[in-house]
Amino acid sequence: MTTPQATTLREARITIVGLGLMGGSLAGALKARHPCQHVSGVVRQRETARLALARGLVDQVSTELAPAVAEADMVILATPVRTILELLPQVGQLARPGCVVMDLGSTKAAVVQAMLALPAHVQPVGGHPMCGKETSGLDAAEPDLYQGRVFVLTPLQRTGSEALGLAEELVEAVGGRPLVMEAARHDWLVSVISHLPYLLACGLVGTAEQVSQRDDAVWTLAASGFRDTSRLAASDVTMMLDTLLTNRDMVLDALAICDVHLQRLANLVRNGDAEGLSMALTAMRERRERMFR
Amino acid sequence: MTTPQATTLREARITIVGLGLMGGSLAGALKARHPCQHVSGVVRQRETARLALARGLVDQVSTELAPAVAEADMVILATPVRTILELLPQVGQLARPGCVVMDLGSTKAAVVQAMLALPAHVQPVGGHPMCGKETSGLDAAEPDLYQGRVFVLTPLQRTGSEALGLAEELVEAVGGRPLVMEAARHDWLVSVISHLPYLLACGLVGTAEQVSQRDDAVWTLAASGFRDTSRLAASDVTMMLDTLLTNRDMVLDALAICDVHLQRLANLVRNGDAEGLSMALTAMRERRERMFR
Repeated sequence: MTTPQATTLREARITIVGLGLMGGSLAGALKARHPCQHVSGVVRQRETARLALARGLVDQVSTELAPAVAEADMVILATPVRTILELLPQVGQLARPGCVVMDLGSTKAAVVQAMLALPAHVQPVGGHPMCGKETSGLDAAEPDLYQGRVFVLTPLQRTGSEALGLAEELVEAVGGRPLVMEAARHDWLVSVISHLPYLLACGLVGTAEQVSQRDDAVWTLAASGFRDTSRLAASDVTMMLDTLLTNRDMVLDALAICDVHLQRLANLVRNGDAEGLSMALTAMRERRERMFR
Repeated sequence: MTTPQATTLREARITIVGLGLMGGSLAGALKARHPCQHVSGVVRQRETARLALARGLVDQVSTELAPAVAEADMVILATPVRTILELLPQVGQLARPGCVVMDLGSTKAAVVQAMLALPAHVQPVGGHPMCGKETSGLDAAEPDLYQGRVFVLTPLQRTGSEALGLAEELVEAVGGRPLVMEAARHDWLVSVISHLPYLLACGLVGTAEQVSQRDDAVWTLAASGFRDTSRLAASDVTMMLDTLLTNRDMVLDALAICDVHLQRLANLVRNGDAEGLSMALTAMRERRERMFR
């Protein structure tokens, strides 16, 4: 049905669109470990282009999409999700037959839906590496970002096994652990373990900010507990905005479940129920300790 | 009205009741920097006593409260808050005239209230160092725990200036930054920057746990964002239980304010209000970045 993908990773010319934290780190990892033939970057700002070359993160960099996509065996869209959705139709038009079109967006259902409309001669596959930092941009990029991290791949029904295989090979080449799953399942799970923590961090900072307007000493007393719990509130706004807006129902569901848990804890506190509260807190502690031991 | 406190820190014999993370670290800091004459510890378990001596955190350690308090110029209660409240009457009976009775409890209003009932011949002052880790117990103790950290002191009206001075000198001797404030003000501020983050972390872990019962992959996808936001859920349960139960109204108020912020964010997501959401998230990001730069 589609043109088979014949390129091996070793022969592949890879174009990464967007050299921020994720794209810049991916480019850097490919250059450092050189599993492929050529790494090209597409950026909007000349300054970013200059920096990417100076840091040796790419073989070539351009501010123009067309030539960099046209010559690629694999195009990886590493921008915020809503920009990925805008870029996909253009990339579909520009890409040569057999080209694998992948992305690194934080939500997958909307991206996979948009990938359905790509021309039959390209091979789409969604991707989302489970790593990140609250810092963003090329300055924050580091070639080891993917090392040991789960990297979700969401193939479409039309995605050929060779294209998926190439994506898996790419993930492993940068140190990641490929995990194939359906887009909707991915989006639900990340709403709970990524988007919810982000919103809680924002709610926490908003609360402290409001309280600080009457008593600024709140910032003086804030220690490592506040720092860690609020860390995600410093995430890149465009990335998180796109993430939330392309995963609205699931984000709201996750927040609603969390609200039930918080109200249950609030009731135990309100009633001074030492035994019930102790049991609930102990269960949370044991669950958290099992995770990160 | 009270017997004047004549002892200088250099001459002081200090008894720390409870050698967990906070008490053990304080003892270790005093032994390492030796600003005082003698450091004595009181613990419940013989094994803890043995370990404290083996690590050189104390000059002397006992499982009996009476002799260790009776010979002290300064007694520091370093247990969870409800144990502090239980111990205070006994310590008042045992302490010699002029003895400074301090604590390291996470909430201050209940402690200061209980300190009002101490005999007139002792000098009470509340204390709360703004540091900690999610690990607990003597094993986690480290002499540098207080270095550079704000250390709140909540004197009572009856607290003499010499006793408060001795407490400040002690804080500075272990590297802390003394900050005198009223107990109620402290309790409100920590409900926002310490107890609220703890509850949010617990709500997050509870949500993930519930979701994991249908799809265990939620733990596989959890990355550094989840890890940091949920870290406080691993805090010592007895300490946090006592903290929440002795600061109920303020904890519930902080949670209610946070809920308003979370619902506001949820509404922006629900309505797909990209502009409003972007403004809200940008404000949170800027506020967070100003804090920890």
